[in-house]
Amino acid sequence: MTPDWIAVDWGTTRLRVWAMQGPKAVQSRNSDKGMGGLSRDGFEPALLELIADWLPASGRMPVIACGMVGARTGWAEAEYRAVPCTPLDPHQAIRPAVRDARLDVRILPGLSQSAPADVMRGEETQIAGYLASDPGFDGTLCLPGTHCKWVRIARGRVEAFQTYMTGEMFSLISRQSVLRLSLGGAVPDAGAAASGAADALADPHAAQRELFSLRAGALLHNLAPEQAAGRLSGLLIGAELGAARDFWHNRKTIIIGAPELAALYETPMRTAGADARRMDGAQLVLAGLTAAHLALQEKP
Amino acid sequence: MTPDWIAVDWGTTRLRVWAMQGPKAVQSRNSDKGMGGLSRDGFEPALLELIADWLPASGRMPVIACGMVGARTGWAEAEYRAVPCTPLDPHQAIRPAVRDARLDVRILPGLSQSAPADVMRGEETQIAGYLASDPGFDGTLCLPGTHCKWVRIARGRVEAFQTYMTGEMFSLISRQSVLRLSLGGAVPDAGAAASGAADALADPHAAQRELFSLRAGALLHNLAPEQAAGRLSGLLIGAELGAARDFWHNRKTIIIGAPELAALYETPMRTAGADARRMDGAQLVLAGLTAAHLALQEKP
Repeated sequence: MTPDWIAVDWGTTRLRVWAMQGPKAVQSRNSDKGMGGLSRDGFEPALLELIADWLPASGRMPVIACGMVGARTGWAEAEYRAVPCTPLDPHQAIRPAVRDARLDVRILPGLSQSAPADVMRGEETQIAGYLASDPGFDGTLCLPGTHCKWVRIARGRVEAFQTYMTGEMFSLISRQSVLRLSLGGAVPDAGAAASGAADALADPHAAQRELFSLRAGALLHNLAPEQAAGRLSGLLIGAELGAARDFWHNRKTIIIGAPELAALYETPMRTAGADARRMDGAQLVLAGLTAAHLALQEKP
Repeated sequence: MTPDWIAVDWGTTRLRVWAMQGPKAVQSRNSDKGMGGLSRDGFEPALLELIADWLPASGRMPVIACGMVGARTGWAEAEYRAVPCTPLDPHQAIRPAVRDARLDVRILPGLSQSAPADVMRGEETQIAGYLASDPGFDGTLCLPGTHCKWVRIARGRVEAFQTYMTGEMFSLISRQSVLRLSLGGAVPDAGAAASGAADALADPHAAQRELFSLRAGALLHNLAPEQAAGRLSGLLIGAELGAARDFWHNRKTIIIGAPELAALYETPMRTAGADARRMDGAQLVLAGLTAAHLALQEKP
């Protein structure tokens, strides 16, 4: 089986590849060789490890990659494109030097915003994937995760965006702060998360004020780890929703992410009257990479 | 030299001891044998390492200790006293079993508050130290540090208190989050900290909204590590000041801590019209331990 081209989602911790025939994925593989653990000369071998048997005996295989692979400390720096702009322009992709002449690699650039200073790498491809099926969308996309991106879209372009470190903060606080003693690795209780999010959206000081009480509540009142973890998760998300209100208030908003996490964002927004709905974003990176491939075919 | 008694400040990371003659410290020593690194049978040897040559050939030496040494996972659990109450009651000290019969050890209990749930261990002794020289104080004490304590005092008692994890959050974010790549171990710039604190006090969402822009500012605009670290420090402190406003608004407030850190709290509070001043708290633990010693002498 030889694909037409290969799609690559290369983040900090994971590498995912798809063997593509036109817009159709015929096979996919992944490894833990994210860019975070690779030095510059480790990228090509890490890629070949997954795709070597997809390559032709001769000729060149188009490979389109997005994500942190294009960071300054990645395989080759794909300089940010400044918003406002379309999420993708594959003609501005960077082509790293390769040893294996069969590889024709393009790394898609991320987006930057000068003020407030912000950057993204990888999410722009998910955004392009969303717009491929809803090109007239006018509103906000919210992409929760380690770093949640709020993205204002109009006329097919990214007008502005803002990053919140909510997922990373949850991980740091629950695993490395004194609260780790009370939260352990507990699975956050969904009800506690929902009420925490509602409370923190209503009171912007709630998250900061209540953090340590999760520890004290465990010491004094046997607050269960699942409850404490849920409350923490909700408080942080609610605080983010309060800070990001301009992105979703009176704007159609689509929350793109894993269902349970997206629901934690959706419920308090809808309670506050927002026109918010969620969708699973698992396929959007591939849809965006496919859009990039098609654009390269059309205007070679 | 044989002291009358020995004062001990035993926190999570440090052990400090003073040889006392009445209220006067004639010698002091310290080690890194904080309670965090000790198992239950490690406390007595760690203490003897510092004080063995202060002990008499026969007879018992009073030792008064405060801090995390009295936690559930410390030498012996000194159960919290519930506020409202005086900061110290040495008659409720716990006396751990000892092997060396010359040791007569008392561990002072910390304070707890049921709702909102909160606890302290060690700060109650600093508070008692402050009240020893200002017994009629009516207002708020603010003790910044890894965990900042805001404490409402009236009629010689702790009426209520609240803990903020601001120092720990600064440490986690600057050393372990993605911002570490932009902040390194830089010394926070004082001017950037002051303006960050003012901005976050004025806008409760500023801290959360600006976190990631410290990383992006470094990538896009060469934001200097000292500026980014200062801004982060100020944003977190300003957010704390906003959340703790009820403690300092229209209340006489004394900020007890290292001069530079205390100034970061004092300046925005005074700008907001607060009656706030700061004092160096280096001697307050010892003053509190001395007050406990005197109380035990008076009412044996």
